[in-house]
Amino acid sequence: MIEKGPEMKVMIVGGVAGGASCAARLRRLDERAEIVMIERGPYVSYANCGLPYHVGGVIEDEASLLIANPQLFRDQFAIDVRTHTEAISIEAKAKTVTLRDVTTGAERAEAYDKLVLSPGAVSVRPPLPGLDLPGIFHVRTVPDARAIRTWLAANAKGKRAVVIGGGFIGLEMVENLVHRGLDTTLIEMADQILVPLDVEQARPVEALLRQHGVTVVLGEGVTGFATNPSGAIDVATKSGTVYAADIVILALGVRPDTALAKSAGLAIGDRGGIKVDAHLRTSDPDIYAVGDAVEVRDIVTGTDTLLALAGPANRQGRIAADNIAGRSATFRGVQGSAIIGLFGTTVAWTGASEKTLRRLGRDDYEKIYLYPNHHARYYPGAKTISMKLLFAKSDGRILGAQAYGEDGVDRRIDVIATLIQKGGTVYDLEEAELCYAPQYGSAKDAANFAGMIAANVLRNDMPLAHWSVDHTSLLLDVREPSEIADYAVPGALSIPLKQLRARLSEIPRNRDIAVICRSGQRAYLATRILLQNGFTARTLSGGVLAVQQSAH
Amino acid sequence: MIEKGPEMKVMIVGGVAGGASCAARLRRLDERAEIVMIERGPYVSYANCGLPYHVGGVIEDEASLLIANPQLFRDQFAIDVRTHTEAISIEAKAKTVTLRDVTTGAERAEAYDKLVLSPGAVSVRPPLPGLDLPGIFHVRTVPDARAIRTWLAANAKGKRAVVIGGGFIGLEMVENLVHRGLDTTLIEMADQILVPLDVEQARPVEALLRQHGVTVVLGEGVTGFATNPSGAIDVATKSGTVYAADIVILALGVRPDTALAKSAGLAIGDRGGIKVDAHLRTSDPDIYAVGDAVEVRDIVTGTDTLLALAGPANRQGRIAADNIAGRSATFRGVQGSAIIGLFGTTVAWTGASEKTLRRLGRDDYEKIYLYPNHHARYYPGAKTISMKLLFAKSDGRILGAQAYGEDGVDRRIDVIATLIQKGGTVYDLEEAELCYAPQYGSAKDAANFAGMIAANVLRNDMPLAHWSVDHTSLLLDVREPSEIADYAVPGALSIPLKQLRARLSEIPRNRDIAVICRSGQRAYLATRILLQNGFTARTLSGGVLAVQQSAH
Repeated sequence: MIEKGPEMKVMIVGGVAGGASCAARLRRLDERAEIVMIERGPYVSYANCGLPYHVGGVIEDEASLLIANPQLFRDQFAIDVRTHTEAISIEAKAKTVTLRDVTTGAERAEAYDKLVLSPGAVSVRPPLPGLDLPGIFHVRTVPDARAIRTWLAANAKGKRAVVIGGGFIGLEMVENLVHRGLDTTLIEMADQILVPLDVEQARPVEALLRQHGVTVVLGEGVTGFATNPSGAIDVATKSGTVYAADIVILALGVRPDTALAKSAGLAIGDRGGIKVDAHLRTSDPDIYAVGDAVEVRDIVTGTDTLLALAGPANRQGRIAADNIAGRSATFRGVQGSAIIGLFGTTVAWTGASEKTLRRLGRDDYEKIYLYPNHHARYYPGAKTISMKLLFAKSDGRILGAQAYGEDGVDRRIDVIATLIQKGGTVYDLEEAELCYAPQYGSAKDAANFAGMIAANVLRNDMPLAHWSVDHTSLLLDVREPSEIADYAVPGALSIPLKQLRARLSEIPRNRDIAVICRSGQRAYLATRILLQNGFTARTLSGGVLAVQQSAH
Repeated sequence: MIEKGPEMKVMIVGGVAGGASCAARLRRLDERAEIVMIERGPYVSYANCGLPYHVGGVIEDEASLLIANPQLFRDQFAIDVRTHTEAISIEAKAKTVTLRDVTTGAERAEAYDKLVLSPGAVSVRPPLPGLDLPGIFHVRTVPDARAIRTWLAANAKGKRAVVIGGGFIGLEMVENLVHRGLDTTLIEMADQILVPLDVEQARPVEALLRQHGVTVVLGEGVTGFATNPSGAIDVATKSGTVYAADIVILALGVRPDTALAKSAGLAIGDRGGIKVDAHLRTSDPDIYAVGDAVEVRDIVTGTDTLLALAGPANRQGRIAADNIAGRSATFRGVQGSAIIGLFGTTVAWTGASEKTLRRLGRDDYEKIYLYPNHHARYYPGAKTISMKLLFAKSDGRILGAQAYGEDGVDRRIDVIATLIQKGGTVYDLEEAELCYAPQYGSAKDAANFAGMIAANVLRNDMPLAHWSVDHTSLLLDVREPSEIADYAVPGALSIPLKQLRARLSEIPRNRDIAVICRSGQRAYLATRILLQNGFTARTLSGGVLAVQQSAH
């Protein structure tokens, strides 16, 4: 029998991922605590990650998005759930929260012993003219999704959609609007979609969207909206182009909802999120904060960051509950594992991108590109995975990975994510013993290949060249003539690998040689032959496939 | 330019996974070495893992099983490949190998500086009467598969197959024979198929086979074969039952091929494999051995073991090459990650099984059963994964995992395999940041769930009960009446979770309570409620699903 301390009243503001997890966990740890969960919307614990698929009709039934309802929280967890209730201010000294009934507008203060803030993030809404016109929507809540479905049903003739913002929600909305038969235009301010990816890894995804009929407009800002004479919405842009739309989806990203935290005078971090310590305690020892609204430590870069993802929010909720229940639990930080499905393909990543490493001024890193099959080539249906791996030059520690393909992408990124979590190196990846049967992988798995190549680089067996930066070396193409006929590398000297040993005399000894083949494997062998024969040679990472990918 | 040592002659016996990897890697490291690769069969580097699928017609073209041919090894790698050549003895002192030309029978001795043995394993062939009758086949080589296909084509009326042995090859053959329309019987001597699995985890796989029309006979030994009057083969068994077959597949497992090693007087381990050190050097410093024929260290149990899998063989080949090329490389050992696909489902595991831990007398372990969805339940198509996780009671180190389901099994086992490799714990698994979008996983991923449950156990928040061992506790079923109507737990007291707090007085305080629900989640919450109210309560791991799984 556990010791009975004084009964404690815990108020949790926000009833979705972080808040709901915290409430349930806290109840399991403490039957005696009074737990109140406040939610301004009509629902708690709903599946906001599913909203685009509800719009698209993949998830047809709205009710299936409601993972748990207030009644369940009351019945199973004895939690006092109050929907349609907004916390409008915190009086930290008095330890009260002022609550407003959204329906009646009535306000009153309520006391707490411990407070948990899980307010989430709010959609970025730039002050653009016409932003509130009918037909312009966000996708944050169940009512948002319902409004879009209602609009699409009522405007069945309207066939043109403009989605603004090429992040997760924007792209998922693009797919789902295409799925519903709309002519869809994506407008993104950056010069690439999915900005957590490095640009060359985003290029094939942009190409995929175009293959599916999406008009992808990059590097373009939206300046405003207006109703045009036909009743549609004109989306005006910086370049002067106007895109007419029957529906507009705003997916410009989110920012932490810190209004409440600021009312309590809680510390806010440099990135604009609520500052918390490893126990998820804010600058007020009786107030915890979790989820999209808080700044978290990035375990790869060591910097503070914002990461609006459900997985970390859920784990944070549990950890805050542990601490409130008198345990000492710490959040280990985030590494930014993420995934998105698009038109039957998968894009996923974990850890730091190259652009992040560069922004932070890190130069102790190397990168490789590779294009392994997701399973044994001899088994029908093998698909190529486009992978980029980033690792520390000094000790081989894995820093990040990005992958794209039709199958097996999630699994390889999860393996690498797990290694990053444990401080693993490319040597660990090289030696990983993963499940292998021909319909699942290869005896040397795609993930092993990434480790082997990177380890070859670090052991100095494979000096690397990169297409984007290397313009002075002599290019040596060791592919077969039939391959060169399909795609010739401009300016390259051609000696098929098979003939290389016999034709070394044709290669100048006074130049750096960058060896290229289809994906890098033959170029590596050629590099080894050249190095051992006294040449200065490097392998062009990812070969022709990497060159073509960047050029998409 | 690398230093040029004296030219070295390396002979590699065996040209499939380990041997071929070793040869290619060695060439990349040393352009000057003379490398001879000896293979008794007609092919090198062929896909033996694909053979059952070639029999089944999934891989229709035999040529696609030949990953690399001798010409490629000669042209690209300057390796002297000799197929149809058998190494029949090693004269270790003289450093020669006696080679026999399989075609002509001619023998001659050939010198080596370093020798690599990659002889693989041979099929177990018990001395049973009739073993050589026509229509009885092994599945080890491309000619084996060809012979089966030829037999099936020539005996198109024959519709009854008997497969003896329920390991990987046996089961893959079962699937492929069913795929070809044969009435298939599987006879296995053990009381379960897939003996690396714990028996309760094999049960649903056996049920699956039966659903697909396979006659599964467990605990039955074959005593001999005879031609019956109709021309078919009678398979006689210990129980006296005779199974008539038009084709018989022997898949009784393999044993290391150590004949050659013994001829050289090399040390053989207790498990019957060639003994090697961490550098994969045998008891003769100039002879290395890799692949199915060697004993390897199991990193989970610390014991020596045999593991006939292609992944480790490939990595061992590379490491032997490194050492021969003058580097110091070590093999980290194995953990036994494996996977098999059967009728659209996947079975996979990594690390130690419970039966192995028990056999070794380990008692510092606990186990949990769980049945999470492979992705968010609200996204269409969510499938249950049946998981068992084994971990150390003392420090939470993950010892092994077994999983079965229709989707997402490979990924979760690979994540756990990666953690095992890094000495990871259930606390790491609990906090793993895996890729999440609703069509790929859950905010709390199936793998996280395993970690969370195990961590709850180790933190003493969830004392565990197991159906198989627990027969004295009072069973408390906290499911809803509608669920109990579908499946009632014999002898259980029923109080739905929602009513538990109000009905505590109905529960005896002088008894151990084992709480059961569908999968364990509600039982955990009920356990927490009971414990905090002074009861002695435990959660029945895996709930009704675990009970039903064992009873299959």
